[in-house]
Amino acid sequence: MHMSDIFITFEGGEGAGKTTQIQLLHDYLSAKGLAVAAVRDPGGTAIAEQIRSMVKSNANEDIYVRTEALLYLAARCEMVEKLIRPHLSAGRIVLCDRFADSTIAYQGFANGLNLEDLERIGRFATGDLTPKLTFYLKIDPEAGLARKTAQQDLDRVENKGLGYHKKVQEGFDRLAEQNPQRIVTIDAALTAQEIHKIIIDRTNKVLEV
Amino acid sequence: MHMSDIFITFEGGEGAGKTTQIQLLHDYLSAKGLAVAAVRDPGGTAIAEQIRSMVKSNANEDIYVRTEALLYLAARCEMVEKLIRPHLSAGRIVLCDRFADSTIAYQGFANGLNLEDLERIGRFATGDLTPKLTFYLKIDPEAGLARKTAQQDLDRVENKGLGYHKKVQEGFDRLAEQNPQRIVTIDAALTAQEIHKIIIDRTNKVLEV
Repeated sequence: MHMSDIFITFEGGEGAGKTTQIQLLHDYLSAKGLAVAAVRDPGGTAIAEQIRSMVKSNANEDIYVRTEALLYLAARCEMVEKLIRPHLSAGRIVLCDRFADSTIAYQGFANGLNLEDLERIGRFATGDLTPKLTFYLKIDPEAGLARKTAQQDLDRVENKGLGYHKKVQEGFDRLAEQNPQRIVTIDAALTAQEIHKIIIDRTNKVLEV
Repeated sequence: MHMSDIFITFEGGEGAGKTTQIQLLHDYLSAKGLAVAAVRDPGGTAIAEQIRSMVKSNANEDIYVRTEALLYLAARCEMVEKLIRPHLSAGRIVLCDRFADSTIAYQGFANGLNLEDLERIGRFATGDLTPKLTFYLKIDPEAGLARKTAQQDLDRVENKGLGYHKKVQEGFDRLAEQNPQRIVTIDAALTAQEIHKIIIDRTNKVLEV
């Protein structure tokens, strides 16, 4: 079986459980004999990982919001060109931890940058690549941050406080309303297995088409 | 004497002598008792210098042209917000080694990216900051590269070969034609003192207004 252009993204606030769900879906699809690649944005290439370190570092706490947006987009640009497009061309299903919706939710809704500017620069960066399917794991921002705090030290973005993360959620909610065909909203308070079941059902529908 | 919004940029291909001329103009204006700050783009802040290292490194030879453009713009964005605007607000004259015209010449003309996209993203990055005056030191690309090679090992950009640097020059020439009020083209084959004389004459005219 050879898939083409099956690009699936996972979105949501901090602590929503994206990593777990990507791993579960990756294992599920691999067990079906499908070729799958999982990547995370920002990251995945040498340059994108250097950018990731810069934007996540608490040492760069005072980074200007527009600079931050351009850096996230530079990392995504590199990853799309060097990783995602080659994977898709080789017939692999690509699962991506965060993508363009995160820019709109974080840099647009939470940081207040102009949404139209962000979308335009985003299209320049990705060459218009759009996910076939997006799973938005919706978690109460307070619960999500509590989960993250229990797991690890918070990075610069996670450290921004509850008000910020509520605006991020508002952004994802709005995007989900505007893109009902592409974005599947899932209550992240469900168990990992319940969420996984929803995800494989929707993914299988896309694979069958 | 208190200057406001005197932002002067220096453009041109490799080996055109920008560094020398910025130093000479800096010393001249300081000797007149004016507050002057000289900066280089990309660079000037901790984040922008990290980006500078990434784009100049021969290890990143295969960086995607769109990623490179976004990184240059991210560095500029940070420098404008953290350095140039504060200097200008404090009444300092700012001399800048490269700015938006370099993006159009290198990423647009030489790398073939869409000029309108670059201009739009550039305006997002700089918040529409435009130089009052730009000195374009025009050098024969072959002579410029020979000068650079004599001085130091070439970096990733300088290493791109003569055809590339000819397109860069074509870009600067076009920009100079389109912006005759702002851009002063100077033959870089003149002596440093002859060039300096032209630069101080034009700068004094701007300061007198």
